[in-house]
Amino acid sequence: MKKIEVLQNIMEANESIAARNQQLLDKHKAFAVNIMASPGAGKTSVILQTIAKLKDRLNIAVIEGDVASTLDAEKVRNEAMEVIQINTRNMPESCTLMAAMIEEALKNLSLEDIDLLLIENVGNLICPSEFILGEHKRIVISSLPEGDDKATKYPVMFTDADAVIINKVDFLPYVDFDIPAFRRAVKGLNPKVRLFEVSCKTGAGIDDWCSWLLTEVETNSHKLKIKDRTSK
Amino acid sequence: MKKIEVLQNIMEANESIAARNQQLLDKHKAFAVNIMASPGAGKTSVILQTIAKLKDRLNIAVIEGDVASTLDAEKVRNEAMEVIQINTRNMPESCTLMAAMIEEALKNLSLEDIDLLLIENVGNLICPSEFILGEHKRIVISSLPEGDDKATKYPVMFTDADAVIINKVDFLPYVDFDIPAFRRAVKGLNPKVRLFEVSCKTGAGIDDWCSWLLTEVETNSHKLKIKDRTSK
Repeated sequence: MKKIEVLQNIMEANESIAARNQQLLDKHKAFAVNIMASPGAGKTSVILQTIAKLKDRLNIAVIEGDVASTLDAEKVRNEAMEVIQINTRNMPESCTLMAAMIEEALKNLSLEDIDLLLIENVGNLICPSEFILGEHKRIVISSLPEGDDKATKYPVMFTDADAVIINKVDFLPYVDFDIPAFRRAVKGLNPKVRLFEVSCKTGAGIDDWCSWLLTEVETNSHKLKIKDRTSK
Repeated sequence: MKKIEVLQNIMEANESIAARNQQLLDKHKAFAVNIMASPGAGKTSVILQTIAKLKDRLNIAVIEGDVASTLDAEKVRNEAMEVIQINTRNMPESCTLMAAMIEEALKNLSLEDIDLLLIENVGNLICPSEFILGEHKRIVISSLPEGDDKATKYPVMFTDADAVIINKVDFLPYVDFDIPAFRRAVKGLNPKVRLFEVSCKTGAGIDDWCSWLLTEVETNSHKLKIKDRTSK
């Protein structure tokens, strides 16, 4: 039973660090979103579209999680207010971001100026579901070329999500993906989840997603901060 | 350091069970292939195409690894000689198959009749790279809609592969994927790796992949077994 015990300890330690992260974010009225998906589902593309749409309304920073490389941070660098890359390759868990990694990153961000912190998790539909980071919302992206069975095969990820983005809807003519069946499977696991159908290529659905996200940021006590800045 | 120690123990235990698995497979002249990829990259489709192409030459069994569901096993059931589903959801590591799970599965397979055992790992580009199962060859599938940066972002998986299948090449007109650049990135990590470009939809490239696989099965002392059976 030794291993299970240790896992239990890691989980508990992660949860208490995550709680501290959220307190710090709340103190600075910075709203954090944890974006999770398979490799190649479009996490970075959704982040780039979100920044393009909301950067006039919000100061947006990004934390990029990857096993190796800084490819995603480089794509985001010129668009976000601040970007931090975390490489997990030599960490005990390389398959997910953990709260302790975010704690380090938060020390290097200008939280007092940030309204929205987008955290791109490691590309993985399993491990990130087990570790909260201190985020306010958990988002899962699922893309059409992956197939419409992902909620059934990776249920934990979808059960705990606040919103699911169905990305690459422009692929519909080329793939066998039943969007209503996928929506039913996700809602079956998680009746309260919000679903958005988007294409980062054509821009379809980005307005709906960003409008929901902006409302979430504004209604979570961050409104005051934005108003303060605007009125200066 | 407690956690690192425990991880070390798990890795060592896994390697010794994997060695036992391979001895058992060798005893029965059954050749095992570990197929790894992101969710939705086409592992099940490659398995179905491989069975269709080789079933007249080889007796093929399949082990399906998934967090939850039996969807893939159902797809393969009528095609393979035998199929076993492993669900990892309630196991200590849910993000990968481990040698101990394969050991259990092998007890339920007619190894004396099997020439080729295709093991579909859990959809994940990270965790499966850390656990050998007793397989003779390790195959990674990467599909065009995932993007051409996957070898750079998930290097361990590609460094240890015997072959990499570039799947969904029929998507080339619709995605921005630089096949020569991807090939260079993979070869940079792993100069000896074999690369195959295939489409499970159109059947392109399946002959090349299956021809290589058949040669591997035949040259690894399994030839005798097939010859024995054929001459009966």
